Amino acid sequence: MFIAMNRFRIGLGKEDEFARIWKERETNLPEVPGFIAFHLLRGPSDEQCTLFASHTVWASRGHFEAWTRSDAFRRAHGGAGQSAGLYLGPPQFEGFEVIQAIDGRPAD
Amino acid sequence: MFIAMNRFRIGLGKEDEFARIWKERETNLPEVPGFIAFHLLRGPSDEQCTLFASHTVWASRGHFEAWTRSDAFRRAHGGAGQSAGLYLGPPQFEGFEVIQAIDGRPAD
Repeated sequence: MFIAMNRFRIGLGKEDEFARIWKERETNLPEVPGFIAFHLLRGPSDEQCTLFASHTVWASRGHFEAWTRSDAFRRAHGGAGQSAGLYLGPPQFEGFEVIQAIDGRPAD
Repeated sequence: MFIAMNRFRIGLGKEDEFARIWKERETNLPEVPGFIAFHLLRGPSDEQCTLFASHTVWASRGHFEAWTRSDAFRRAHGGAGQSAGLYLGPPQFEGFEVIQAIDGRPAD
């Protein structure tokens, strides 16, 4: 399992607009081979900005990399420039391999 | 849903020892109310260190905070000093609220 995260530093007061852009975008992720789940995460704030992270779980690093080479990926990222005023600096990508997993009990 | 991450900078060549310590530790996490899943993640390396992250999914921030106040939490973290030689600096905690979720199709 592989987790792809992009960290975004969003100017204070711009958080709702940033979240709205993500919620309104169209995505074909559920049809992409190896896609398991996507979450948009809101992290801590400091005096300058609020940390957000996109957090996508893939079956493997290979599935993620295949998606980044697809036409659908290019289309999904073509509009990023429209919201450039929200960002303090470029997003920071981090890819993680899952090396240990502990699952909770199924809900009753 | 809430994701608690701790980021660890581990000296080059110490990665396997760090992973072994995590795999060998005893944990009662599956019995803790609100615990959903734990993953230990291995991220990118640079010239100094390799980034790891512990990544725990909770039903809510409140469930996570209740666990940090428990005796089990104190026991689980009491031994951290034994492996201090592995770390470049203290761990960096980040808590994230899930504000959007997209799920993949169930496996065939």
